[in-house]
Amino acid sequence: MSEFRVELKKVIDDSYNIEIGYDLVERLMNDIRDGLFGSKHRFVVITDTNVRDLYGERILNELKTIGYGADMFVFEAGEKSKTRKTKEEIEDAMLEKGYRRDCGIIAVGGGVVTDLAGFLAGTFGRGVPFVNYATTMLAAADASVGGKTAVDTPLATNLIGLFNQPKKVYIDIAAWKSLPKRQLISGLSETIKHACLADVSFFDFLEGNIDAILSMDKIACEHVAEANCRIKYNVVMQDELENGLREILNLGHTVGRAIETVSDYRLLHGEAVSIGMIAQMKISVKYGYMTVEEFNRVKALLNKSGLPTAIPDYIDREELVKKLYTDKKVRDGKIRFVLQKGIGDVVEFEKGVFSAPIEESLAREVIMEI
Amino acid sequence: MSEFRVELKKVIDDSYNIEIGYDLVERLMNDIRDGLFGSKHRFVVITDTNVRDLYGERILNELKTIGYGADMFVFEAGEKSKTRKTKEEIEDAMLEKGYRRDCGIIAVGGGVVTDLAGFLAGTFGRGVPFVNYATTMLAAADASVGGKTAVDTPLATNLIGLFNQPKKVYIDIAAWKSLPKRQLISGLSETIKHACLADVSFFDFLEGNIDAILSMDKIACEHVAEANCRIKYNVVMQDELENGLREILNLGHTVGRAIETVSDYRLLHGEAVSIGMIAQMKISVKYGYMTVEEFNRVKALLNKSGLPTAIPDYIDREELVKKLYTDKKVRDGKIRFVLQKGIGDVVEFEKGVFSAPIEESLAREVIMEI
Repeated sequence: MSEFRVELKKVIDDSYNIEIGYDLVERLMNDIRDGLFGSKHRFVVITDTNVRDLYGERILNELKTIGYGADMFVFEAGEKSKTRKTKEEIEDAMLEKGYRRDCGIIAVGGGVVTDLAGFLAGTFGRGVPFVNYATTMLAAADASVGGKTAVDTPLATNLIGLFNQPKKVYIDIAAWKSLPKRQLISGLSETIKHACLADVSFFDFLEGNIDAILSMDKIACEHVAEANCRIKYNVVMQDELENGLREILNLGHTVGRAIETVSDYRLLHGEAVSIGMIAQMKISVKYGYMTVEEFNRVKALLNKSGLPTAIPDYIDREELVKKLYTDKKVRDGKIRFVLQKGIGDVVEFEKGVFSAPIEESLAREVIMEI
Repeated sequence: MSEFRVELKKVIDDSYNIEIGYDLVERLMNDIRDGLFGSKHRFVVITDTNVRDLYGERILNELKTIGYGADMFVFEAGEKSKTRKTKEEIEDAMLEKGYRRDCGIIAVGGGVVTDLAGFLAGTFGRGVPFVNYATTMLAAADASVGGKTAVDTPLATNLIGLFNQPKKVYIDIAAWKSLPKRQLISGLSETIKHACLADVSFFDFLEGNIDAILSMDKIACEHVAEANCRIKYNVVMQDELENGLREILNLGHTVGRAIETVSDYRLLHGEAVSIGMIAQMKISVKYGYMTVEEFNRVKALLNKSGLPTAIPDYIDREELVKKLYTDKKVRDGKIRFVLQKGIGDVVEFEKGVFSAPIEESLAREVIMEI
């Protein structure tokens, strides 16, 4: 018998820039010319049916004009497309077109596109470089920092995926205007979540500027994009591999993810998270971590933004309770919740533990009330 | 417009041990008890129909006896199972049984099992820890060092996957005895490849001890396992992310992979590589990098091992030439070959470049001769 040691200690630098601005297509092209993808000269644009015409085609054409090889692969917009099947179809289409490890990937769209394309990039040829060109506020809030990529399966959302960092993220605020109002509003949900868990002054800003944001005021939107990046970054940097602190980003997501699935994606992700925020706040109030006034303040902001704060009638609440048990944060069969502590903070239950097991009876009680 | 820097520079330690010995199940159990998987207490055994009865069941039962939660997921043995579909089926079965991020994975089998299970482990819950319990000589030679995991697609082998390092590798030489003779012989192919590309004295050893190895002499087999690990490790350590040197491990694989696919996996991987070794050596002799005597010496060892050195009659040679163009090492439409330099070395064409573009006419000529 003998032992052989494989030494694989090394320094990895996955650092990247997030650029926030108006209409960043030319910036992307300049970066590519300047070597953002090294010597790659073949590019794959991955986008969805919402963004293809406005941004996908344009980026594709600019790449071709410069003289790069490029193809665009488009899937049906919506969370329902975030599957292993869509990933497989794009992989096969790329292979069919002769793409191998010699390509770079440009994800153009919202969080569904960046989640799927980032995962695909991480396993295509065991990893090719990618950038995110984020066209939604939700992607700005949620998908720009953290490196989480994934697809959904019938039994669980975001459970098959990777930590995979992009080479750069572009947050194009001009693109927010092209979103259907409902999509834009849905994006506000993760923004409000960020304020609730980490930054009461940002919460104040949102309360005071919600109309300006909804009417796409440039300065207000840029502030929102920056604050989202900063808050998420501060959390993620302290816990890149999701061992502890990072779970606070799941605020509102325990019930949110479950209700999103149970609604069969009739609820957009942000809408589902808004309802999930109400659920965790109700538990928080019951445990004394939040006052009723604070609860009402957050609920009012969600309402003013146009987000739902009640479970729609078509949802079977018992099915929702059952669904909670398939959440990937389940440990030892108990449902765990991150809980808000007032506004701008979360509860640390013990050192490094930011979620608490919640009895099924209490979860059911809360869900029946919403 | 503003820029935001995400700093992600860090030290990663993916080091692990390879243990080579006879019947290492108890060692595995001790390691798990000693915290190899940290605090995980639920384990998934992934294996195939060849190994289930002898090793899979035993490891499963020992885990349960200790008191861990454990399930076994078995797929049909053979390269044909190394697909996204098999991965998806196991993922769904794991989710169905309630596995989330709280589990560890134990891959038990040959290279197909370790490739598939290592990839699955890397994307399940965005990564759960895994170990390889390697039961074949091929896995010892090929899959124990390097962290390459992947599945095949209809258009390309090993193109969808990850670099993912195991927590530990067990090379159980006792398990080699349980292999069908043809499988054992197939495993010798990568071993001979290693000797050819890096170590003439190991080649001498193989020439002198091939009968002892084929009759499973303990000392000879242990030496084979160790030499394989050492040679592969030396290459991989110098080039972990496959930027240059590591491509020498593809010696014999340009034609080998293509013929494996064209044979529709009637040829085992090692058998296909053996034929691929003949192809690259023929080119090498034509270019003057190898003498005819050296060619004959390697061919004689392949033959003596029981490996094929001619293309079987059922293979369409023209289809094989066509298939070469879908190899993932294709750059700019040219077929690239790693070439042997005598015995125990490879050709460095220019600094850091270990493969050369080969004209289709020459590749065709060689394939028609074999």
